[in-house]
Amino acid sequence: MKQAIAQLLIAQKGNYISGEEISKLLAVSRTAVWKHINSLKEEGYQIVAAPRRGYCLVERPDILSMVEIKTGLETKILGQNLLCFPLVDSTNEVVKREAAAGAPEGTVVVAEQQEQGKGRLGRQWVSLPAVGLWFSVLLRPEIIPAQAAQLTFVSAVAVCRALRAVTGLPLLIKWPNDILLGQQKVCGILTELSAEIEGIDYVVAGIGINVNQQLEEFPPELRDTTISLALAAGHSFSRAELLRKILQEYEEQYRLYLEKGFAPIRSSWRKFNATLGKEVLVSTREGSFTGVAEDINEDGCLLIKKDSGEREALIAGDVSLRGSLMTKSKSNS
Amino acid sequence: MKQAIAQLLIAQKGNYISGEEISKLLAVSRTAVWKHINSLKEEGYQIVAAPRRGYCLVERPDILSMVEIKTGLETKILGQNLLCFPLVDSTNEVVKREAAAGAPEGTVVVAEQQEQGKGRLGRQWVSLPAVGLWFSVLLRPEIIPAQAAQLTFVSAVAVCRALRAVTGLPLLIKWPNDILLGQQKVCGILTELSAEIEGIDYVVAGIGINVNQQLEEFPPELRDTTISLALAAGHSFSRAELLRKILQEYEEQYRLYLEKGFAPIRSSWRKFNATLGKEVLVSTREGSFTGVAEDINEDGCLLIKKDSGEREALIAGDVSLRGSLMTKSKSNS
Repeated sequence: MKQAIAQLLIAQKGNYISGEEISKLLAVSRTAVWKHINSLKEEGYQIVAAPRRGYCLVERPDILSMVEIKTGLETKILGQNLLCFPLVDSTNEVVKREAAAGAPEGTVVVAEQQEQGKGRLGRQWVSLPAVGLWFSVLLRPEIIPAQAAQLTFVSAVAVCRALRAVTGLPLLIKWPNDILLGQQKVCGILTELSAEIEGIDYVVAGIGINVNQQLEEFPPELRDTTISLALAAGHSFSRAELLRKILQEYEEQYRLYLEKGFAPIRSSWRKFNATLGKEVLVSTREGSFTGVAEDINEDGCLLIKKDSGEREALIAGDVSLRGSLMTKSKSNS
Repeated sequence: MKQAIAQLLIAQKGNYISGEEISKLLAVSRTAVWKHINSLKEEGYQIVAAPRRGYCLVERPDILSMVEIKTGLETKILGQNLLCFPLVDSTNEVVKREAAAGAPEGTVVVAEQQEQGKGRLGRQWVSLPAVGLWFSVLLRPEIIPAQAAQLTFVSAVAVCRALRAVTGLPLLIKWPNDILLGQQKVCGILTELSAEIEGIDYVVAGIGINVNQQLEEFPPELRDTTISLALAAGHSFSRAELLRKILQEYEEQYRLYLEKGFAPIRSSWRKFNATLGKEVLVSTREGSFTGVAEDINEDGCLLIKKDSGEREALIAGDVSLRGSLMTKSKSNS
């Protein structure tokens, strides 16, 4: 009921609607309306009340609630099953538990805060409350495990397009799927899968975006290599609106992938990439080397021409532009 | 304590050991010894007692208990963490839950019965109590998801070698990893994985072996395509002994794989295979075709020269010899 009242107020934002009208429209007592309005105020909704005119929503809070995310969400699959939490261990872990219990494709888990946010390669992802977008998407495509890497490019292209559209910032993608402004990281993506040899059971795309952090909210060791959208643009963003835009763009790119395969995704990725044609330093479990990043192949591997002249297809590892800053202890950067 | 007493009796099988001696050796009361002996008898141990001589183990039961499996197990990793259950949903599911909670490489889960035994491609696996070996092995190799298919060949080679050694039967492997006697299925393997794009978290190899079933214990629709080791050999087998032999062989093949890569595994697989060089009928999600199975590649794909002359690398699907029987509703066959 609180959600329904919030939706009415949001639809009438800036205009008054009387308690009596709400009470009639939703078949609920005046007392209940009053209680729910108070509860919405506690969540951060700025609602003014005037005698004989009723209630007027002045300002919506920047919270990741069901109502804030779903109001205006124009997707058919992604986020239709939406779970919002104040605090989780990791949104990827929640999705994996939901998936094992049979959750449908398109399930989205959002949290205001993660206690054990995960980055690629087992690294930590710093997930402060209320300033970022930390969420995970459950997909169940009919592909084999080796193709799951392609989905990480679907995620990167979708997020890059959505963030560019909302913020106007010239964001680019670093192989495989970090989103950068210049050399500073705005977004990281961690793709996990559960599968048989002959087919995927599910893929989880975990997406972490630095949205409204101020400089002092980043750990000192990340300040050179990380940036939030708010710091870059000079103003804050509605995280719910960003999330809606991302889910819409993601659904579009995912449908394109299912219908046309990896080719159109690869082509978009090439357009937005910050890696190809550059001299890079590559760090893998086996060691480091330098070379030129030439392209990505069908499996999502980065094709590198080493300084030695050898060519290598890289599936795992860290790539940085030669001479640029690198940190490896935490992966928001 | 019951396990320790069982181990003493097993070590002295056929000889008497007095209650007083057991009591002293294990620092336990005579009454407790007597109670544990009774409990072992209930499990199926045939123990005779004689005045002034004590207890003598005449016959061990064919049960999959900790003692029966671990006594004589010569592995360093596989089965060192061993979990035995009378009944589970599926041993693969138990291993996946254990793995998510941090269980170590080599964890083995064995069950007398599975309620929801799983075959490849989402099929059912009939797992009657006390007549088969239904178990799963947890591995944590440093490989990428696409390489997980190689492990399914490690499993098949290890099981085939172990079963041949114990039974003397001329068993062969059908691509990718069914173990057959002639055209009849003895063993199926279901490999599942949990991973990031850049590396495996864990692989579960679920192995189901028809050991001591009599013909009437198979569902009628499986009787043409399935056989137990006991039916084939004309006598029953100790399932615990079979399992020990498999775990030992598995550890050896797995170590070989980690040290030398896929080449020696592929070479063993070729030696034991029942598919290469044969005219086959292939059924996939997309349809059926016929051709000749020529080889397997580095990814475990079956390389087929179709009747049309085209070549195809098959990662998923069912392969049967042309003209042989096929059933698809259940996968023990």
